[in-house]
Amino acid sequence: MSDLAPSNQEAQKAGEALKQRVREILPIIAKNAEKTDANRSVAEENIELLKAAGFTRALQPKAFGGLEIDAPSYGPILMEIAENCSSTAWVAGLLAQHSHMIALMSEELQQEIWGKDTSVLVSSSVAPILEAKPVDGGVILDGTWSWSSGCDHADWAQLGFKRAVPELDNMMLPHMACVPKTDYEIIDDWHTAGLKGTGSKTLKLKNVFVPEHRIDGYIELATGQSKGFGSHPGKIFHSPFASYFALGFSITALGTAKAFIKLYKEKQSKRVRAYTGAKAADSAPAYMRLAESVLQVRAAEARLAQDWSEMAQHCNELRLPDESMSTSWRASQTYVTNQAIEAVNRLYTGSGGSAWFDNNRMQKLWRDVNMAGSHAYSDLDVAKQTYGRHLMDIEPDMDLF
Amino acid sequence: MSDLAPSNQEAQKAGEALKQRVREILPIIAKNAEKTDANRSVAEENIELLKAAGFTRALQPKAFGGLEIDAPSYGPILMEIAENCSSTAWVAGLLAQHSHMIALMSEELQQEIWGKDTSVLVSSSVAPILEAKPVDGGVILDGTWSWSSGCDHADWAQLGFKRAVPELDNMMLPHMACVPKTDYEIIDDWHTAGLKGTGSKTLKLKNVFVPEHRIDGYIELATGQSKGFGSHPGKIFHSPFASYFALGFSITALGTAKAFIKLYKEKQSKRVRAYTGAKAADSAPAYMRLAESVLQVRAAEARLAQDWSEMAQHCNELRLPDESMSTSWRASQTYVTNQAIEAVNRLYTGSGGSAWFDNNRMQKLWRDVNMAGSHAYSDLDVAKQTYGRHLMDIEPDMDLF
Amino acid sequence: MSDLAPSNQEAQKAGEALKQRVREILPIIAKNAEKTDANRSVAEENIELLKAAGFTRALQPKAFGGLEIDAPSYGPILMEIAENCSSTAWVAGLLAQHSHMIALMSEELQQEIWGKDTSVLVSSSVAPILEAKPVDGGVILDGTWSWSSGCDHADWAQLGFKRAVPELDNMMLPHMACVPKTDYEIIDDWHTAGLKGTGSKTLKLKNVFVPEHRIDGYIELATGQSKGFGSHPGKIFHSPFASYFALGFSITALGTAKAFIKLYKEKQSKRVRAYTGAKAADSAPAYMRLAESVLQVRAAEARLAQDWSEMAQHCNELRLPDESMSTSWRASQTYVTNQAIEAVNRLYTGSGGSAWFDNNRMQKLWRDVNMAGSHAYSDLDVAKQTYGRHLMDIEPDMDLF
Amino acid sequence: MSDLAPSNQEAQKAGEALKQRVREILPIIAKNAEKTDANRSVAEENIELLKAAGFTRALQPKAFGGLEIDAPSYGPILMEIAENCSSTAWVAGLLAQHSHMIALMSEELQQEIWGKDTSVLVSSSVAPILEAKPVDGGVILDGTWSWSSGCDHADWAQLGFKRAVPELDNMMLPHMACVPKTDYEIIDDWHTAGLKGTGSKTLKLKNVFVPEHRIDGYIELATGQSKGFGSHPGKIFHSPFASYFALGFSITALGTAKAFIKLYKEKQSKRVRAYTGAKAADSAPAYMRLAESVLQVRAAEARLAQDWSEMAQHCNELRLPDESMSTSWRASQTYVTNQAIEAVNRLYTGSGGSAWFDNNRMQKLWRDVNMAGSHAYSDLDVAKQTYGRHLMDIEPDMDLF
Repeated sequence: MSDLAPSNQEAQKAGEALKQRVREILPIIAKNAEKTDANRSVAEENIELLKAAGFTRALQPKAFGGLEIDAPSYGPILMEIAENCSSTAWVAGLLAQHSHMIALMSEELQQEIWGKDTSVLVSSSVAPILEAKPVDGGVILDGTWSWSSGCDHADWAQLGFKRAVPELDNMMLPHMACVPKTDYEIIDDWHTAGLKGTGSKTLKLKNVFVPEHRIDGYIELATGQSKGFGSHPGKIFHSPFASYFALGFSITALGTAKAFIKLYKEKQSKRVRAYTGAKAADSAPAYMRLAESVLQVRAAEARLAQDWSEMAQHCNELRLPDESMSTSWRASQTYVTNQAIEAVNRLYTGSGGSAWFDNNRMQKLWRDVNMAGSHAYSDLDVAKQTYGRHLMDIEPDMDLF
Repeated sequence: MSDLAPSNQEAQKAGEALKQRVREILPIIAKNAEKTDANRSVAEENIELLKAAGFTRALQPKAFGGLEIDAPSYGPILMEIAENCSSTAWVAGLLAQHSHMIALMSEELQQEIWGKDTSVLVSSSVAPILEAKPVDGGVILDGTWSWSSGCDHADWAQLGFKRAVPELDNMMLPHMACVPKTDYEIIDDWHTAGLKGTGSKTLKLKNVFVPEHRIDGYIELATGQSKGFGSHPGKIFHSPFASYFALGFSITALGTAKAFIKLYKEKQSKRVRAYTGAKAADSAPAYMRLAESVLQVRAAEARLAQDWSEMAQHCNELRLPDESMSTSWRASQTYVTNQAIEAVNRLYTGSGGSAWFDNNRMQKLWRDVNMAGSHAYSDLDVAKQTYGRHLMDIEPDMDLF
Repeated sequence: MSDLAPSNQEAQKAGEALKQRVREILPIIAKNAEKTDANRSVAEENIELLKAAGFTRALQPKAFGGLEIDAPSYGPILMEIAENCSSTAWVAGLLAQHSHMIALMSEELQQEIWGKDTSVLVSSSVAPILEAKPVDGGVILDGTWSWSSGCDHADWAQLGFKRAVPELDNMMLPHMACVPKTDYEIIDDWHTAGLKGTGSKTLKLKNVFVPEHRIDGYIELATGQSKGFGSHPGKIFHSPFASYFALGFSITALGTAKAFIKLYKEKQSKRVRAYTGAKAADSAPAYMRLAESVLQVRAAEARLAQDWSEMAQHCNELRLPDESMSTSWRASQTYVTNQAIEAVNRLYTGSGGSAWFDNNRMQKLWRDVNMAGSHAYSDLDVAKQTYGRHLMDIEPDMDLF
Repeated sequence: MSDLAPSNQEAQKAGEALKQRVREILPIIAKNAEKTDANRSVAEENIELLKAAGFTRALQPKAFGGLEIDAPSYGPILMEIAENCSSTAWVAGLLAQHSHMIALMSEELQQEIWGKDTSVLVSSSVAPILEAKPVDGGVILDGTWSWSSGCDHADWAQLGFKRAVPELDNMMLPHMACVPKTDYEIIDDWHTAGLKGTGSKTLKLKNVFVPEHRIDGYIELATGQSKGFGSHPGKIFHSPFASYFALGFSITALGTAKAFIKLYKEKQSKRVRAYTGAKAADSAPAYMRLAESVLQVRAAEARLAQDWSEMAQHCNELRLPDESMSTSWRASQTYVTNQAIEAVNRLYTGSGGSAWFDNNRMQKLWRDVNMAGSHAYSDLDVAKQTYGRHLMDIEPDMDLF
């Protein structure tokens, strides 16, 4: 990318340095993978190390000690984490990505969160299911917000909700609020068949008052009109929140697929067919499955890299993506996630019964990558509908997010 | 089937009565499903009830109190068990199917097993991996035999091994032996990601002598030349062992898929899209996935029923299947298993994140059906190679079983 | 099927005899396949031979010299024709199947068509696109009706149209009319990439008056309320028109797939890899493709046979199918057609460049089977939506037929 | 690509200029598509225009008036040609790509071909099926060489053959020879179901003597040891022949897919469902098919662009690719071709019966793209085996090319 502005060569350099620091701790992250699952929460040690390495500052404003690296530099680092532990990548990714959204919200809020301690992390539960009760100077939130990945490691939470907008005939529109840990209780209800370690527990709020400066609208956050838009010179903040918020889903899936591929090669080369003693690796279907999955993952990765490039280019040119571009990014990432899942499933199907034992990491990766695909953002049916309507010039269907 | 011989109308009638008795206990089997998984062994109550209902006698010779029902009558009963608990179906099926093989082995062995107590059950581990040491009057078996589903409920075990055949230049050929429980120790090592309840643990034998009358060759058992072939008038025993031994794999998979379909309908009709509140069932992809999986399962089931019919017809005509027929049955069942898996995976992919919680039976069925496909008998790559070579008139590849 | 009523053993016997007569002419039908394509119309010789063999009388009432054979007997005969010439099967099937619908329409119409010559054939164009102009004693049809397969061989045509129904607030409902050849002109516009020989040309009508006795409603024809329902004792006429009208689509597709499989085996066993001289048949992917397609076709065929059985059973019991049953038949046949297409495409993909030459029947079968899937009745997207909505208890979508 | 050497910025500039010149003639190429098919040979006008625009000089040495543009610049231009006429792209691509191989062969041969007229084109038939007879100073070629795309427009032909290599115990190894048009007769035998316009006819040679300077070995051409390697300073010639020779196959397929996608959007937005009059474009499956195919094509294109980049980088660094790299390029391109085919087939399946008429370009594109996949180079089974063996560290299978 010969046309990168100076600031971004800086980003690239900062990214390169971060990558080296993260690589040093990957063996520990890998070693903690089972513990992370057993605890149903990312091992505290992982989070501490990732903080120390600066990973959680990747997308944070420099004003608060952040690195402001961009998507093309950030993606590969998170991918390597995912190759070592899917749950850690999922959580660390979200915690890092949330910083980007905070930087788009009011400066007052930014100060509340990072003013005293710039290392503070924020988890989220963004689905705007519940309606807020409007009160003077803000809203009241009451109820439960589930799927808050990594909440054990966060001091604040970003919560989605619906709220009547007086200027628009009180239409109910999605909004985002940040609330401090003292405002909610964590319900320990994360018992799942995959991504066990993400600790995506439920947050319970009882009639919590949230002042306006902690709130922004989805639409505002998506269109450069949120309260803190422009509050930082970093080019990565000249962007809709979603581009950065959602980066980690496809990366976690693809990284998990790459880990599976490595494992498959190792296991197949040792595997012997139960009834005949024949070497499994020598059989055409075994290596054809491998080739197909590698080709699929490589194409997906090339696509993803191109998306990151497009995002960076938009930021560098201080251009917000138009609908066509942002729809394409989202569809593309969902596609990549599902290609990663297919790649893993093809290999797992050819891995035999021994791959099912608890002490065989294959079954874990298979469960993890499939669960990654179950996130609303990764729903291929939704993405194909949304993107397909866009391509066919049919108006968006508001039932699909 | 207008040409069924009288004996088989009898079988049909016995089958019908058995089905009624089994249906009465299905609610309990369903209720015990979680316990079965938690125990990593089919709930004792299930086995007791299935014994009491006569299910484990389905394929046992009448001389020992068996019902001698045939494949077309047996299949649907086991399918209903599978709809309620995959692990119970897997285990109960194998325990019942093993009786058929015992009836093909020496009468002396049959007496040893059922002479005093006709309700005795036999588990197995048939992969002929280890070599037996030849000694006077039999062989010595030494080592471990894994994957012995339902061994907790059995008093004997059928074990595969290799043995030199002097008449054939000491070629090493696969054989089967039966040994009593006193000859082996059960290693409690069944920790898996699916079919947890099958308790397919490892059997450990230390230099166990097995006399000749407890042994038969695979080839003999497959071609009507085993020691006890013809020892019972029941027509189902005029058959290679494999036709009956392997019945349960595809049935378990298909029954699990049918259970999943039922569950999907229920869940989808209640499910609401996280971000929009839209009813999931109303979306075209949701019901198109359902339609496709139902069509797939219905076609698979039609194929399976036709295989059972062909098996019964061969037995009724006292005809052993030729290579073409038995290759086709095996490939067909493997195909059915894999169609069932595809049907489930398509639906699970469309089921969203809530389907991943431990208390949602969907994730359990998904794990179970996929694991069913990991059994050597259900390996589609192997089946396609074996059947494909046969169809293309290429000689069998001995590396494939 | 032990419970077949005597009349149907008769049908079975008549079917068996018909099959023998048809088999004798199959070599000529095969020989005429290229001519049929070149003429863009089934070779006249084929039609004459099929008439002489009685095939076109398969579903005609006995009162007019018909055979009244049922679906389970009819299906396999048409399948054999399809194995020899897809276009001939498509056309001969429709011409035979139309007789069944005529037999449900007014006796006056039946006399007009078959009164003087019981061998008269009727082609169709059933999509109810145009609206008829109501006049005293009937309607005026004006416009073009396309896709009239086999119209060159027919003396009448069955045409679909919409018409206001006064009893239902003038709702526009689909109807069917029969018109004699003198009422329309055939436009020679059948220039297509597949099924070239079906001669599915356009019929042009200029202000043609159609009297009431030549008209019936879709709904009436589907629910046993049409003018001639009950006019014949034959049990196959106790059925909605669609069950018989649509029989041929899936059969043509499946028969073409079976022909392709045969050809693939032949060609692969001779084929040599261009760059290396290696025998193609010996390569695992080549025979695995074969195995998978054979398994797929066998499952599809088993499903189809079961549908035919269910249809026959309904007729024998003088029971009209409920919505669940008829929706399932339609979806099932569309599924079968598409399974046949997949089976062919998988093999064609593995057939190399030589399969593309005009003198290689493979490319022709590939084009034919894919085009068979393009018929509205075979549209899997539509079928999955219709069937899926039904399975999910969502009301039918009237935009889907 | 900030690290491009100056020579390649030149290449990029030359490429950009060529693209503009080619774009001007695309409408004529599109207009000639039917004529090209009807003639079973690319329209003479197309070749003349492409020559005049300099396209056929794209990969020719500057010493002979060539442009020496590199893969990343060449690819997109050929892709645009393919979007307008698959056959023209296939042929023009090969004719241009052959120049690259000529430049690797002896300077004497280069002079013979381009010495008097630098615009001379060379067609090929590279499968080394026949064996040459060794004679003093060269070999005798006798027999037929088929699949010589674009031979009508060429004055020379490159032919593959086998030849004993005395230094290697007379092992038979593949070689390539160039022969002038006077040495062979073109047999007009190109009658196919797809890519009709490529005119890939058979060349007949009767005992033709070929002197050594017109010959090189495959291995030499692949490893920088051929007679003319190093005869030109242009960096694109620091490469194995295959990287450039094979560029066009995946590009033709992908360009055809892109053309199909454009057409699908147009046609679907006008299409009305036969039985109901509903607008097809409004149905979820119609636009979901579109979305999926667009996503698939975009990922394939990203992968392809990355391969081109890697090729250019190797050339710029004067590095020949190692086995891992060249195996990956080949597999990747085959994968891309097959992704393009899948993308088209998915859309064609949803395009209805009208897409089958001769005057609907959809059926043509469908036939073309599928045939593109039938080329030996595009055989996914072969690619998956070759690449899979490589990935699994199994030695290459010489039966696979």
